[in-house]
Amino acid sequence: MPAAPADSALYGSLFGDPDTARLFSDTAEIRAMLLVEGALARVQGALGLIPAEAAAFIDRSSQEVQIDPSALAAETGRNGVPVPGLLAAFRKAAGAPEPMQYLHWGATSQDIMDTGLALRLRPMLALWDGRLGALLARLADLAEAHAAQPMAARTYGQFATPTSFGAVVAGWGWPLLDWKSRIGPLRTAVLTVSLSGAAGTLSAMGPLGPRVRADLAAALGLADPGHSWHSDRSSVAELAGFAAGLAGSLGKLGEDVLALSQSGLSEVSSGGGGSSTMPQKQNPVAASALVALARHVIGLAGLVQGSALHRQQRDGAAWFGEWLALPQLCLSTGRMLTLAAEVVESLRPDPDAMAQLLEDGQGLIHAEALTFALAETLPRPEAAARVTALCDEARATGTDLTALAARDFPGTDWAAALAARGMGTAEAEARDFAARVRGS
Amino acid sequence: MPAAPADSALYGSLFGDPDTARLFSDTAEIRAMLLVEGALARVQGALGLIPAEAAAFIDRSSQEVQIDPSALAAETGRNGVPVPGLLAAFRKAAGAPEPMQYLHWGATSQDIMDTGLALRLRPMLALWDGRLGALLARLADLAEAHAAQPMAARTYGQFATPTSFGAVVAGWGWPLLDWKSRIGPLRTAVLTVSLSGAAGTLSAMGPLGPRVRADLAAALGLADPGHSWHSDRSSVAELAGFAAGLAGSLGKLGEDVLALSQSGLSEVSSGGGGSSTMPQKQNPVAASALVALARHVIGLAGLVQGSALHRQQRDGAAWFGEWLALPQLCLSTGRMLTLAAEVVESLRPDPDAMAQLLEDGQGLIHAEALTFALAETLPRPEAAARVTALCDEARATGTDLTALAARDFPGTDWAAALAARGMGTAEAEARDFAARVRGS
Amino acid sequence: MPAAPADSALYGSLFGDPDTARLFSDTAEIRAMLLVEGALARVQGALGLIPAEAAAFIDRSSQEVQIDPSALAAETGRNGVPVPGLLAAFRKAAGAPEPMQYLHWGATSQDIMDTGLALRLRPMLALWDGRLGALLARLADLAEAHAAQPMAARTYGQFATPTSFGAVVAGWGWPLLDWKSRIGPLRTAVLTVSLSGAAGTLSAMGPLGPRVRADLAAALGLADPGHSWHSDRSSVAELAGFAAGLAGSLGKLGEDVLALSQSGLSEVSSGGGGSSTMPQKQNPVAASALVALARHVIGLAGLVQGSALHRQQRDGAAWFGEWLALPQLCLSTGRMLTLAAEVVESLRPDPDAMAQLLEDGQGLIHAEALTFALAETLPRPEAAARVTALCDEARATGTDLTALAARDFPGTDWAAALAARGMGTAEAEARDFAARVRGS
Amino acid sequence: MPAAPADSALYGSLFGDPDTARLFSDTAEIRAMLLVEGALARVQGALGLIPAEAAAFIDRSSQEVQIDPSALAAETGRNGVPVPGLLAAFRKAAGAPEPMQYLHWGATSQDIMDTGLALRLRPMLALWDGRLGALLARLADLAEAHAAQPMAARTYGQFATPTSFGAVVAGWGWPLLDWKSRIGPLRTAVLTVSLSGAAGTLSAMGPLGPRVRADLAAALGLADPGHSWHSDRSSVAELAGFAAGLAGSLGKLGEDVLALSQSGLSEVSSGGGGSSTMPQKQNPVAASALVALARHVIGLAGLVQGSALHRQQRDGAAWFGEWLALPQLCLSTGRMLTLAAEVVESLRPDPDAMAQLLEDGQGLIHAEALTFALAETLPRPEAAARVTALCDEARATGTDLTALAARDFPGTDWAAALAARGMGTAEAEARDFAARVRGS
Repeated sequence: MPAAPADSALYGSLFGDPDTARLFSDTAEIRAMLLVEGALARVQGALGLIPAEAAAFIDRSSQEVQIDPSALAAETGRNGVPVPGLLAAFRKAAGAPEPMQYLHWGATSQDIMDTGLALRLRPMLALWDGRLGALLARLADLAEAHAAQPMAARTYGQFATPTSFGAVVAGWGWPLLDWKSRIGPLRTAVLTVSLSGAAGTLSAMGPLGPRVRADLAAALGLADPGHSWHSDRSSVAELAGFAAGLAGSLGKLGEDVLALSQSGLSEVSSGGGGSSTMPQKQNPVAASALVALARHVIGLAGLVQGSALHRQQRDGAAWFGEWLALPQLCLSTGRMLTLAAEVVESLRPDPDAMAQLLEDGQGLIHAEALTFALAETLPRPEAAARVTALCDEARATGTDLTALAARDFPGTDWAAALAARGMGTAEAEARDFAARVRGS
Repeated sequence: MPAAPADSALYGSLFGDPDTARLFSDTAEIRAMLLVEGALARVQGALGLIPAEAAAFIDRSSQEVQIDPSALAAETGRNGVPVPGLLAAFRKAAGAPEPMQYLHWGATSQDIMDTGLALRLRPMLALWDGRLGALLARLADLAEAHAAQPMAARTYGQFATPTSFGAVVAGWGWPLLDWKSRIGPLRTAVLTVSLSGAAGTLSAMGPLGPRVRADLAAALGLADPGHSWHSDRSSVAELAGFAAGLAGSLGKLGEDVLALSQSGLSEVSSGGGGSSTMPQKQNPVAASALVALARHVIGLAGLVQGSALHRQQRDGAAWFGEWLALPQLCLSTGRMLTLAAEVVESLRPDPDAMAQLLEDGQGLIHAEALTFALAETLPRPEAAARVTALCDEARATGTDLTALAARDFPGTDWAAALAARGMGTAEAEARDFAARVRGS
Repeated sequence: MPAAPADSALYGSLFGDPDTARLFSDTAEIRAMLLVEGALARVQGALGLIPAEAAAFIDRSSQEVQIDPSALAAETGRNGVPVPGLLAAFRKAAGAPEPMQYLHWGATSQDIMDTGLALRLRPMLALWDGRLGALLARLADLAEAHAAQPMAARTYGQFATPTSFGAVVAGWGWPLLDWKSRIGPLRTAVLTVSLSGAAGTLSAMGPLGPRVRADLAAALGLADPGHSWHSDRSSVAELAGFAAGLAGSLGKLGEDVLALSQSGLSEVSSGGGGSSTMPQKQNPVAASALVALARHVIGLAGLVQGSALHRQQRDGAAWFGEWLALPQLCLSTGRMLTLAAEVVESLRPDPDAMAQLLEDGQGLIHAEALTFALAETLPRPEAAARVTALCDEARATGTDLTALAARDFPGTDWAAALAARGMGTAEAEARDFAARVRGS
Repeated sequence: MPAAPADSALYGSLFGDPDTARLFSDTAEIRAMLLVEGALARVQGALGLIPAEAAAFIDRSSQEVQIDPSALAAETGRNGVPVPGLLAAFRKAAGAPEPMQYLHWGATSQDIMDTGLALRLRPMLALWDGRLGALLARLADLAEAHAAQPMAARTYGQFATPTSFGAVVAGWGWPLLDWKSRIGPLRTAVLTVSLSGAAGTLSAMGPLGPRVRADLAAALGLADPGHSWHSDRSSVAELAGFAAGLAGSLGKLGEDVLALSQSGLSEVSSGGGGSSTMPQKQNPVAASALVALARHVIGLAGLVQGSALHRQQRDGAAWFGEWLALPQLCLSTGRMLTLAAEVVESLRPDPDAMAQLLEDGQGLIHAEALTFALAETLPRPEAAARVTALCDEARATGTDLTALAARDFPGTDWAAALAARGMGTAEAEARDFAARVRGS
C-alpha cells in the first residue's frame, strides 16, 4: 500500500531504485542499528565499562539475531522511535538476561539511529559516486563523438547562434563533475558517529564517554565529531542541499532532452513510451520522469532543511519531519542517476534534423555573426542596425538572411563566411570536457 | 522497502493510515481503472457506439478479472502510464478477442487514470469529512467541559492575559469547522469524470463523444465538466491547497499541545512515549508526529501545485510530479486527522498547574486589567506608565503586582478586582464553539 | 535598495504591479490602521464605552493625521509590530491628551493590523476579479476567432492528434473561470474584522466587547466572525492556496506560449524582447516572466501556509513569517494577471505554421484516426498493430502515413478521410468556452 | 512600495540589512555591470581585439558615467534584461560613437549580469564570514562563562537529564563553525567570471575568446571556469543550499531562545518588545524574527534550486525565477546574522531559574542517573523497572524521586550522588567549543 510510487509494485520500475531501497528497508535499518549496538558493547567491553563477556555476547548476538520489523510496529508507534522496542525484542530473542543488561549502556535512541543512518549513507554515497562516474563517462563519449556536430543554440526558446551537440552535452556534464567532486566533503559531513547519551552529555558513561565515542567511530569506520550533534542537523541539511543541487543539474539535462526531442524539431530521440490509443507514440518517458523527480527532490530537500530548526536537545516534530522526507529524497536521487543514465544511453542525435533547423528560420541564427562581419568595415551600431533591418525583411519576405546580405553587401559568399565564423569554442568545450572526465 | 515511512512495517503505525492507504494501493488503483473501463463499455454499448454484447462482456469481465500489479511493472516503466499494460493484461486474461477489441474505445490513459482517481478520492473525502466531524465533536466536549477553566494566554511565549482552556480548545476548533464546510466545494471540484480521448478532443468517438462523457459521469456518480481537463490540474491543486490549509490548522493544535505539555509548565499531559534510557519519559509523540506531518503536507502541496504548470495537452514531467506527491499528501492528511483525534483523546488538562502559572510571574499577567482599572480615574497614558513602572518593580523585587498596586492605590482589593475583570469572552467563546459544532 | 525586484526602479516594470503595490505601501498600511483606530473609537463612542467627544476627536484626527513611516522604524524594530510606535506618533501629532487617552481602547496591535490588512485585501480582490474578467474576455475572443483553426495537439511534447488553436485557448480559460468563481468564497474568508484584545478575550472592553466587534465590522464593511481569529491563520492560508492555484493555471498558459513560440515551430509569436548582441532576437519575455512568477508564487504560498502553525495566542515567528511572504505573493499574483493579459494581447497565431506542422512528421498525427477508421473493418488490435507497423515504416522511409495507408488499404482517399475524422470536439470546446465567458 | 518588508521604511529596521542591501541596490547592480564592461574593453584592447584607444575610452567612461536606473526601466521591461538599455544609455551619455562601438564586444547580457553578480557576491561573502566570526566569538565567551552552569536538557520538550547552559550555547555554535569553514569552497564556486557570448560559444571573439575570458577573470579577481556556465546554475544553487543550511542552524538558536525565555520558565531573557496594550510585555522580538527569516530563507532556497532546471542555452523563465528569489535570500541571510548577534548580545541567563527548574518535577530529571547508579548493584533492566515505578510514584504523590530512592535504597545521599553523576561532558563541550573558536 504505497504512499510513495517508489514503493509500488506497479510504479516501482519507473520511480524506484532497488539498490538504494535496500539501504532504507526496515530490515536494513534494524540491521544497522544492531550493528551499532554490537560495536558499542564491544568497545565498552574493551574499555572495561561493561564486562568483557557480556560485551562479547551482545556483539555476537547482535550479528545473529533476527528481528521482525512488524513486531516492533506497535512500540514504535507509541514511543516515536523504534529503539526501545528493538532492545526489548533483542533482549528477549537473546535470552540471556545477565549479559544483555549491558546492552545499549549509556546510549540513547538517537545515538543508535543517527549512527545507523550514517552506516547506510556510506554505501549510498558510494553508489552515487559510482553512478555519477559512469554517467560522466557516457557523457564524455557522447560529447566527443558529436563535438563538431553543428546545431542551433537556443535562448528563450529562440534560435540564438550555432553551437555543437557536443558542447550541449558538455554543458550537462560540467556541473556533474563538480557535484562528483563534492561527494568527498559530503562524506566528511555525514559519515559521523553519534554518541551523546540521553540528552547530549554522555553522563551515563562517566569520564570514559568521549573515549567510547572515539573508539566506536573507529570500530565503525566513521568520523568522531568530538562533540554531540543530536540537535545539530546541519550535516543532514547539507546532504539535502547536495541532492537538491544535483537534482537541478540532472533535471536540466532532462528538460533539454524533452526540448530537443519535441515533434517538429526531433533533433534527438530518446526512449519510446507507448500510448493506449495512439499507435505512433514514442514518448520520452525517462526524461519526463527525470524532470519530475528533480522537482520532487528539491521540494523534499526544503523539508529536510526546515527540520534543522530543531528545538532544544531533541525535537520530535523536527526529527520526524526529517524521517518523512529523507528516505524518499535519497531514493529519488538514486533513481535520478539511473534515469539520467537511461536517458543518455537511449539518446540518438539526428545530425540531419540539427542541420536542417540551422538552415530554417531564414538564416537568422547568423545575425550576430553577420553583424560582427560587417563591423569590420562599418561602425558596429550601424552594422547592428543594418542587420536588424535585414532580419525584419527576411522574416517578412521569407528570404534567407545571407541572400539579403549578398544583395546589400555584395562580393562576399555570406553563407560560407558566416559558417566559417561558426561555432566558436563549441568543439573545444566538448573535447575539453571529455578530456577532463577521462583525466579525473 | 519503503521510501515513505507510511509504507514501512516499522513506522507504519506512527505515520501510516490504513484506511487511506487502501485507496492508494496498487490493487485499488487497478480496480478503479477497470471499473472505469467497464462503465465506459457499458455506456458506449447503450449508445450503440460499440456492440451491445461486447459491451456487456467487457463490463462483466472488468468486474471479475484479477490483475497482478507487478505483472504490469515493466510495461509501466516503459510507457510511463500503467494503462497500456493493463489493457494488454486484461485482454489476455479475458481471452475473447472479438468483444475485447471494443475495450477502451476512443479513450486514452489519462481518461482512465484521472477518472479512476476521482473514484478513489470520493471515499477519501468522505473519510476526511467523518474524521473532522468526530474530531470536532470531541473538541466541543473538551471546550465545554473546560469553558471556565482559567489559564494563562501567551503571546510570543510570554504571559499576556488570562483566558480559559475551553477558549484555547475552541481556537483549535473554529478553523476545523471552516475546513469541514469546504469539503463540499472540494467534492464539486475533484469528483469529476475525465473523458477527452487521445489529446483532448474525443475525436475517436465521433459526434457521440460528449454524450458518452455525460453518461459515463452519470454511471460513475461523478460530475461531467462539459469539457476536457487533461491539462488543467487546478482541481488537484485545489485539493492540495485544502490539505495544506488543514495541515496548518491541525499543526497549530499539535504545536499548542507541545507547548502546554512542556516540563516545568505541564498544563496538559498528552501521550507518553518512552525512552530507551530515561525511565521517567512520557514524550508527546503523537503531537510531535502531527506537527511533522503538517509541515510535510504543506511541502507536498507546493509540489502538487507546481505540477499544474502542465505543458500543452499532456506533460509527462508535470503529471508524474503529481503522482510523486499526491498519494503521500493524501495519506499524511488522513493520518493527521487520526493523530489529532489521538492527541485530543489523550489530552489531560491540569487545572492546578494552569492556576499555579496564572499566579506565577508576580501577577504581571494582570497588568492590562490593572491599567484599565486605573484608567477609570487616571488618564490612560498615565495609568499605563504607572503600571509599567510597577511591573518593573515587581520583576526587580519579586513582589506581586497586586501587592504593589495595593500599596500605591489603596482601598481596592486588587487581587479580587483584577480576577473579576477576568477572562472576557473566553467562556462564551468555548460554549459558542460547542454549540456551533452540535448545531452543525 | 530592493530585496524584491518588484521594488526596484530597474526591474519594476517587469515584475512590479503598481496597483497592488499601492495597497502594500507603508503609507497604505498606516492609513488603513488609522482608519481602523478611528472607526473603533467611533463605535466605542456610540456604545458609551468611551466619551463621545473623545471618540469624535480621535475619529476626525485619524483621518487628518500624517505619519511618516520612517519615523516609526526604530520602534517597529524594537517591538516587532508598528502599532505602539504609531499610537505614540498619533498621540503626539494630535496634541490633545485628554481625548487621545481613549485611542485604541481595549484593542491590541494584531486587531489593528489584521483588520487593516482586510481593508487592503478588499480592493486587491476586486482588482484580481476585474483583471480575471478582462483576461477571460480576451481569451473568449481568441478562442472563438480560432475555434476551427487546426493545429497539432502534443502529449509529452510529441504530436498526438489534431486539435484547434481555439480549443487550446479554451483550455487556458476554463480553469480561470473556476478561479474567478472562487473569489466570492475567498472574500467571505478574508474580509473579516479582527477584534479580540490583548490575547483573544476582549477582556478590557468588558461585556460590550462582542458588540464593539460587530459594530466595527459593520462600520468597516467587513464580516464579523463572532470569535477571535488571532491565532487562526486559515483564512490567510486560503488566500495563499488560491494564489498558488491561480499561479498554476496562469503558469500553464505561459509555458504553452513558450512552447508554441519556439524557433523551428513558431505557431504563435508573442512579445519581442531584444538581445544585447543578437539583432534578430524577439524573445518571449512576458511569457517567461509569467512562468517565473507562477513558480515564485507557489513557493511563497507554502511559506504562508506554513505560518499557520501559529503557536498559542500569538506567535511572533509565525506571524512575521506571514509578513515576509504575503505582500510579495499578492504583488506577484497581481503582476501575473497583467502579464497574462500582455501575453494574450500580443499573441499572434500563425495558421500556416500550424497547418505545416500538422503535415510534418509523415502524417503520424493521424495514426489514431487511421486506427479507428480501419477498425470499422478489422478487429481493433489488428488495426492498431497494422498502423503501428505503418508508422514505423513511415518514419524509416520518410513516407507519409496516408500514402502508406493508400497503398495497403486502397480505395479510400485517406488524407481526406482522416482530415474529416478531424478534430472532434475542438471547435465546440472553443465556442462553448467563449459562450460561457460571455454568459457569465 | 515594498513587496519585501526589507525594502520598507516601516519594517526595514526589523527585516532589513543595509550592508547587504547596498550590494543589491539598482545602483550597485548598474555599477557592477559597468565595471565588467570597462574591464572587458581594457582586456580586449590589450589583446588587440579592439582598438587600444577605444578600450581606454570605454574603460574610463565606464567609471565616470552616471546612469539612472529608472531611465532603464521601460527597456528592461521589454527585453527582460537591463543590458541593452544600459548599453544604449551608456553610449548616449559617453557621446563618442567611434570608440563606443567597441563596447560590449562579443559579449551577451548574461555575461555582464552574472559576472556583475559575482563582483557583488564577493563582498557579501566577506560580510557573512566576518559576521559569523563575530557571532562565534560571542558564543565562545558565553559558552565559557556558563560552561558549568547546570540546567535541564529537554527532549520532546520534557526534562531529560541535566546539562549546562554553556553546553547548550556550544550546541548552537558547532554548526556555525562548520558553516564558516564552508565559505571558502563557496567562494570557489560562485566567484567566477562568466564570458561565453551570445549562446555559450564566444564565437564573436574569434580564437581569442578563451584568452579574453581568462584575462577578464584576472582583471576582476575572479576565477576562470574554463568553459561556459550560462545554463549551469549549480553554483547559484550551491549558494542557496548554503544559506538554507545556515538558516537551519541560526533558526535553531532562535527557537531555543524562544523556548528558554517562555513565561513560567524564564531561564533566559532576551530582548524586550513592548505591546500596545500590555504594560508588562517584554517580547523576544529578535529571536522571533530570526526564526521567521530562517524559514523564509529555506523556502527561497528551494526556488533558487528549482531555477537550476534551466532549459537549453538560456531560459528566461528559470533565470527570472532566480532573480525573484536570490536578492531576498541574500538579504535575509545577512539579516539573520545580525539578528543572531543581537539575540546573543541581549541574552541574559538566569542561573536561579535554571537551578529551580532542575529541582522541579520531583527530581525526575535524575531518573537515568539513578538507574545507572542502581545498576551497579542490580541488573539494569531491574534497575530501570524500579526507577520507572519510583517515577510513577513521584508523579502521583508529588514526592521527590531522591526521597523515594532514599526510602527504598537507604544508605546513600541520593541527591548528592545523583548531582555528582552530573552533567557528563557538558562543561567540557562548552570549553572545547570556546577553545576551538579562539584557535580557529
